[in-house]
Amino acid sequence: MAIKSISSPQNPLVKRLVLLKEKSRERKKTNSFLIEGKRELSLAIKGGYTIDTLLYYPDLFSESEAQAMSRYGIAIIEISKEVFQKLAHRDTTEGIIAVVQSKSHDLEGLNFRSKNPLILVAEAPEKPGNIGALLRTADAARVDAVIIANPKSDVYNPNIIRSSVGCVFTTELAMASSEDAIAFLKKYNFNIFAAILQESEAYHTQDYTLPTAIVVGTEATGLTQVWREAATKNISIPMQGVIDSMNVSVAAGILIFEAKRQRHFK
Amino acid sequence: MAIKSISSPQNPLVKRLVLLKEKSRERKKTNSFLIEGKRELSLAIKGGYTIDTLLYYPDLFSESEAQAMSRYGIAIIEISKEVFQKLAHRDTTEGIIAVVQSKSHDLEGLNFRSKNPLILVAEAPEKPGNIGALLRTADAARVDAVIIANPKSDVYNPNIIRSSVGCVFTTELAMASSEDAIAFLKKYNFNIFAAILQESEAYHTQDYTLPTAIVVGTEATGLTQVWREAATKNISIPMQGVIDSMNVSVAAGILIFEAKRQRHFK
Repeated sequence: MAIKSISSPQNPLVKRLVLLKEKSRERKKTNSFLIEGKRELSLAIKGGYTIDTLLYYPDLFSESEAQAMSRYGIAIIEISKEVFQKLAHRDTTEGIIAVVQSKSHDLEGLNFRSKNPLILVAEAPEKPGNIGALLRTADAARVDAVIIANPKSDVYNPNIIRSSVGCVFTTELAMASSEDAIAFLKKYNFNIFAAILQESEAYHTQDYTLPTAIVVGTEATGLTQVWREAATKNISIPMQGVIDSMNVSVAAGILIFEAKRQRHFK
Repeated sequence: MAIKSISSPQNPLVKRLVLLKEKSRERKKTNSFLIEGKRELSLAIKGGYTIDTLLYYPDLFSESEAQAMSRYGIAIIEISKEVFQKLAHRDTTEGIIAVVQSKSHDLEGLNFRSKNPLILVAEAPEKPGNIGALLRTADAARVDAVIIANPKSDVYNPNIIRSSVGCVFTTELAMASSEDAIAFLKKYNFNIFAAILQESEAYHTQDYTLPTAIVVGTEATGLTQVWREAATKNISIPMQGVIDSMNVSVAAGILIFEAKRQRHFK
């Protein structure tokens, strides 16, 4: 099969793909995004994502490997060094960029692995590095789901994909308003433990062995009022230092793994 | 008292201070570094650092406040907007930059707060964001000390100061080779728990109530062989996800707070 090739960075498709890399709006409009690198791509395939198009730069990625993927109905395009450099987000990479279909991330689309689920909710996280670390923690703990409440961005931002080392594709993930997330958690009888300093119990004194949602807010402003009202209990990590704050992904890790400990890592 | 002022970014002192901001080598040579912002500066004073010179930009920082500091023997210099912009590292700031004397960070200079100390050792951490998060965790847990073993950089890098939100100044901190750190820990009868996947026990099954050092390595390569040999026990966080790794500052937070929990946060 003859493979299409693009050598000019001025090609209209290339221009569209640059938009896809850079603009959340474009990703939403087209319901697609870019993935770069073999590891991330294989995790996306594992996570059930549909690859539309594979672009490869032959000096870094073999034509036969690319051809093999065309058997799965994936369109293959050979690209020049100039086009590759224009589309690539990272310094070091493997000569491969894919156009992938977004998922919907509805609350009701979540599939819990266990009958006694443990889920992590992060309200309005902002820094891609923190979102990536949260998703890595969620993966390591194999939580049943992550809900991003009141999201500030789409999760297909290249910096989030990178900092999550691909965990964004393998975690059960929903995005919703905080109100909808609370309604969902109540409908399914979750105990809601909101990380809030005021009127809170020390996190390690609480029982996380029933269906549990652990909810963290931003470092700057914490959780919004709706979570204070919805919480089964406010929990906090006793802090004894000079600064009364902790990195949000570290705090979430401590809380989630206390729940895992209580559940004997089952 | 007449205050000295500098308006030209070409002033030789300004050029030296730019080097101090940008070059670890210059910081080592002069045994000094720059601090920017009120909060960081007040934490440094709290941490016992000696301020040599205070530079202030009068549109953002009041002359009377600057004058007040001159009573403590601190040289005060008024600077122009151009000089301030040349020296400032961050976007938003408070018109104040200080030249501060470095500390030595020797192992034997560490002062433990408690008779049953808990300390965190990080070997060769690289990313300023991770080092900052480690120091914030150490502050929140009020560990007795942090040791950076085989350091890759000095801790007065502006990105480390910023990401630690000033905790770098309030934590008992030493830097040493891994060999020296191990000799120190053995001399003071620490149990050494090394975060190593191979031949390890699940972290939550171990006892951290005696003098304890928790040791973490880099995400890419883990700990070096000397720590494997020195460890009282290898510990690991059970990971059940697709990716077998976690952010190093999250992992350190989980381990340190399990120790705190066992010690009833005392």
